[in-house]
Amino acid sequence: MPVVVDSLPLSDRGLHYGDGLFETMAVQEGRVRLLDLHLARLARGAARLAIPLADADGLAAALARAAADMGDGVLKLILTRGSGGRGYLPPDVPTFSLIIQRYPPVAVEGQEGVTVRLCDLRLARQPLLAGLKHLNRLEQVLARAEWRDPAIAEGLMFDSEGLLIEGVASNVFLVREGQLLTPLLDQCGVAGVMRAHVIQRAAGLGMVVQETRLVLNDLLAADEVFLTNSLHGIRPVISLLGRCTWAVGPVTRALQARLWGGS
Amino acid sequence: MPVVVDSLPLSDRGLHYGDGLFETMAVQEGRVRLLDLHLARLARGAARLAIPLADADGLAAALARAAADMGDGVLKLILTRGSGGRGYLPPDVPTFSLIIQRYPPVAVEGQEGVTVRLCDLRLARQPLLAGLKHLNRLEQVLARAEWRDPAIAEGLMFDSEGLLIEGVASNVFLVREGQLLTPLLDQCGVAGVMRAHVIQRAAGLGMVVQETRLVLNDLLAADEVFLTNSLHGIRPVISLLGRCTWAVGPVTRALQARLWGGS
Repeated sequence: MPVVVDSLPLSDRGLHYGDGLFETMAVQEGRVRLLDLHLARLARGAARLAIPLADADGLAAALARAAADMGDGVLKLILTRGSGGRGYLPPDVPTFSLIIQRYPPVAVEGQEGVTVRLCDLRLARQPLLAGLKHLNRLEQVLARAEWRDPAIAEGLMFDSEGLLIEGVASNVFLVREGQLLTPLLDQCGVAGVMRAHVIQRAAGLGMVVQETRLVLNDLLAADEVFLTNSLHGIRPVISLLGRCTWAVGPVTRALQARLWGGS
Repeated sequence: MPVVVDSLPLSDRGLHYGDGLFETMAVQEGRVRLLDLHLARLARGAARLAIPLADADGLAAALARAAADMGDGVLKLILTRGSGGRGYLPPDVPTFSLIIQRYPPVAVEGQEGVTVRLCDLRLARQPLLAGLKHLNRLEQVLARAEWRDPAIAEGLMFDSEGLLIEGVASNVFLVREGQLLTPLLDQCGVAGVMRAHVIQRAAGLGMVVQETRLVLNDLLAADEVFLTNSLHGIRPVISLLGRCTWAVGPVTRALQARLWGGS
């Protein structure tokens, strides 16, 4: 079973290099929401970074135990490559550190619609890290620091080629003529667990989500726009700084209504 | 005076996001080598990331104290944005954590010449972070994990456009027809302190180092190639996997000889 640490040695590679991954999970009534999807993404990331994470069952059990007595809240898991190695070189014998932290619930907001802005920061393109929820998040920190107005719920991010990628802490979907579109995340961006869940739920409603290259004009031409995030579910985008507006449309409403129900 | 912490709370943004900077400094006979250059780079990085670091004198004194009784060795400083904020959003009141760690000396190697390889990983281009020694170092970890043969001292890295940038843990200089060249680091790469020192020393010898865009063919056409790094100084590159070879030339030797002397 994985050992969950309560404190981290100052030698941990998670601190020195951001050499690790994380998951932020909603807990509802003592159960981790979308646990399987979180564990699957973590496993993909660990495989890509060659961080060992052999005991998936033990990890799932540890998370379930951490959630069991907390009612509603948030669990954050951090998996690092532990200590060791010589400088950047990973240790000869692969190892890891696992941290599980409990936080109070966040107020779920924006279900009726949110205002967004466009971030100035352009995401760099690194296909080897694209899609992963790794610990190298300075781009998100700098992008999120671009605004403090609480009326703006999220900033949309483009990459260095001008492609629409994601929100700072969410994924983005567009609806155009009834077709669901979301950015392809093969060069940068985080492939969110709620993004994966929405793609699955849409399929249950007979809708195929197309992962594709999208630009600002696709956003402006969209009939509906919404954000996804593990803690907030689906948030319709209704305004870009009050300048452009979108209605909360039927596709968004259908997905919100069916997000958790039977197929 | 800055407070140096002995342990880090698990909430620290250095761990969660790599939200910070570091310096790795050689200590010789109880003194930090190139301390002013290290502090200057740290200050530039802190300014770029908006991490407060007001008391430069106090920090210099803390480093001097840490070095004073260690003889020869290595000091590593980590500066993070501390704890707080909401998710990626930095805290309203800027704060920081400062860690200073002491390590035994590393054996200085490769002064007569080293073998290098070319890394497969291509560095992403993020001008907002270019030049900084920040804590988002997964690219270096993955690049360094590409080889374990101890006969290969360093891997040369190119960016996504094919430009030569640096070694995994060093900077690179070329000599072509007596002219010193080093990659311009405006899109990615770490602007090393030894790189800055060599540029200064070269000026003292009447040589201007041109910071410019360089590609693989520039490397292959160079008369001399050398690496710089705070711990190893100047290491001539004499072989690319035994396939291409370079002589240790007069410019490299002159810089090695005058690296620490008078003007």
